[in-house]
Amino acid sequence: MTKGERDLRPYIKGVLDCDRRMLAKTITLIESSLPADQESSRQILDALMPYTGKALRIGITGLPGAGKSTFIESFGTLLTGKGYRVAVLAVDPSSPKTGGSILADKTRMEKLAINEKAFIRPSPSGKTLGGVARKTRETMLVCEAAGFDAVMIETVGVGQSEVTVASMVDFFLVLMIAGGGDELQGMKKGVLELADAVAINKADGDNIERAGMARHQYETAFHLLSPVSLSWSPPVVTCSSITTDGLDNILEIILDHREKMTASGELQKKRKEQDCEWLKFMVREGVQEWFYNSPAADVLAESMKDVEAGIVTPTTAAARVLDCLKGRKF
Amino acid sequence: MTKGERDLRPYIKGVLDCDRRMLAKTITLIESSLPADQESSRQILDALMPYTGKALRIGITGLPGAGKSTFIESFGTLLTGKGYRVAVLAVDPSSPKTGGSILADKTRMEKLAINEKAFIRPSPSGKTLGGVARKTRETMLVCEAAGFDAVMIETVGVGQSEVTVASMVDFFLVLMIAGGGDELQGMKKGVLELADAVAINKADGDNIERAGMARHQYETAFHLLSPVSLSWSPPVVTCSSITTDGLDNILEIILDHREKMTASGELQKKRKEQDCEWLKFMVREGVQEWFYNSPAADVLAESMKDVEAGIVTPTTAAARVLDCLKGRKF
Repeated sequence: MTKGERDLRPYIKGVLDCDRRMLAKTITLIESSLPADQESSRQILDALMPYTGKALRIGITGLPGAGKSTFIESFGTLLTGKGYRVAVLAVDPSSPKTGGSILADKTRMEKLAINEKAFIRPSPSGKTLGGVARKTRETMLVCEAAGFDAVMIETVGVGQSEVTVASMVDFFLVLMIAGGGDELQGMKKGVLELADAVAINKADGDNIERAGMARHQYETAFHLLSPVSLSWSPPVVTCSSITTDGLDNILEIILDHREKMTASGELQKKRKEQDCEWLKFMVREGVQEWFYNSPAADVLAESMKDVEAGIVTPTTAAARVLDCLKGRKF
Repeated sequence: MTKGERDLRPYIKGVLDCDRRMLAKTITLIESSLPADQESSRQILDALMPYTGKALRIGITGLPGAGKSTFIESFGTLLTGKGYRVAVLAVDPSSPKTGGSILADKTRMEKLAINEKAFIRPSPSGKTLGGVARKTRETMLVCEAAGFDAVMIETVGVGQSEVTVASMVDFFLVLMIAGGGDELQGMKKGVLELADAVAINKADGDNIERAGMARHQYETAFHLLSPVSLSWSPPVVTCSSITTDGLDNILEIILDHREKMTASGELQKKRKEQDCEWLKFMVREGVQEWFYNSPAADVLAESMKDVEAGIVTPTTAAARVLDCLKGRKF
């Protein structure tokens, strides 16, 4: 170790020992945008890599109002009750639309927040989905290395982030609620395509019957979809985070999925594909980021105005922007 | 005009006069990948721009077997019968999966192929969706400048191309057929989200009742979707390309959509947004293309192997690839 270099061994050891202070410090390093910190977190991740891969990686999505936080609180408590150690993360790039980060405070998961078998990390800040996704994915790996048996990643099912979350987990759960239609509006159809299971939440009290009907409706909808896997057809179930009805069933489904996908070799295959997709994703994002931080971005901004004003065609404008790259070979 | 420069006036005049030979030559120029031809077609397009924008831009998608060609043949014949001049194009990047271009020969549209009010152009060749889409979009503009009143763009609803087609048309029609499930499997749910209308095709003979049931099923599915426009809810209808039942109704729907979207200002807004999206799309594609033709692509290929073998993490691999760009400022 040359002078000035950071000693990363305490981070690595701290994570492997599940020392919460070092775990938090490591994640902070991952979330940092300083080049030196990024280099350090890369080295830490490489060292932790052999200790990752064992957790149940569960993605959870649903519209605002679907009861995601309450579900994670109840389901996470069920898991810890069965001896699981549970980490909860979130992917949610801050945007003017959503008004910032979900899981911003832990007060929405009171029980889980003080549960010693649980670890809740609020959504990292960041403007681009790519940046937030990278941090969350790497935090998931760190939590795995720290010995957490289940990692739940929460996201809102309204944009592109649910696709990104689906691409980093083994099991993708879509939370819905029964309703006359208005509550369900806004959920993108494509989200259903990603689902390994759909749970109609808030199936309690007066709502039980309506939840059952919604369950039937979504089962019908699934018949129009082509199955993602030959060894798995996504079940549609009902549950209540209040009465905890149906939560045991969801755990059984997740474990059944794990067993079947492992036996068929699909889990290994899926994770390998996710790794390659992840590499391509980061390269694509990185290339675009490099480009948009170059002077060509100003040319694009100007050209955009000209196109809006109808002065030039998009084709001519694009040619003008791309001319900036000409001769920029390696 | 300096020596050696191509005189583009015959192209421009030829297109505006709807001289079929010059129209075909102009499209061939657009489809060429030679830089000089690309520059020429840009200049022609800029000159034609003021004459574009009047046509009904109709995108048509559906799975193989949904009867797209027969529908376009029948619907196109209906349009020409009402005095419309109709151009038919296709977006379909050749891939080993689809086995090449749809609309590859005109024999599948026998009547329309010899109809003097119709113009059929097979799908341009090309490996990337971006390249094929660019050519098709520009060909659409040329056809508009040539005075065609309706441009139909066909695509298969299985990949990303339907999203691309939806982003270049005013009205996106999804063709379906009634069936026990198997025929409908494979259609991506997201495609429905793009639809301005869904037509259950082949509603003739023994199939009428089943088509009606499928219509009802899709109407229910639409209730789960948020409306794209406040002034338009996508209707679900049945039709037959054989008996021509329902085709008149589809034309009425398209004209009604045009009227409402024009009145609300949404058509203008949509097209302006499409232009800006189009510029961004082409820049994004161009930047990626530039990158993948650089030596960095080799570094990516090697890194991909290392990730597959589990030797390095995707993050480290991405950093290695992106290092190639370091210091490559303008």
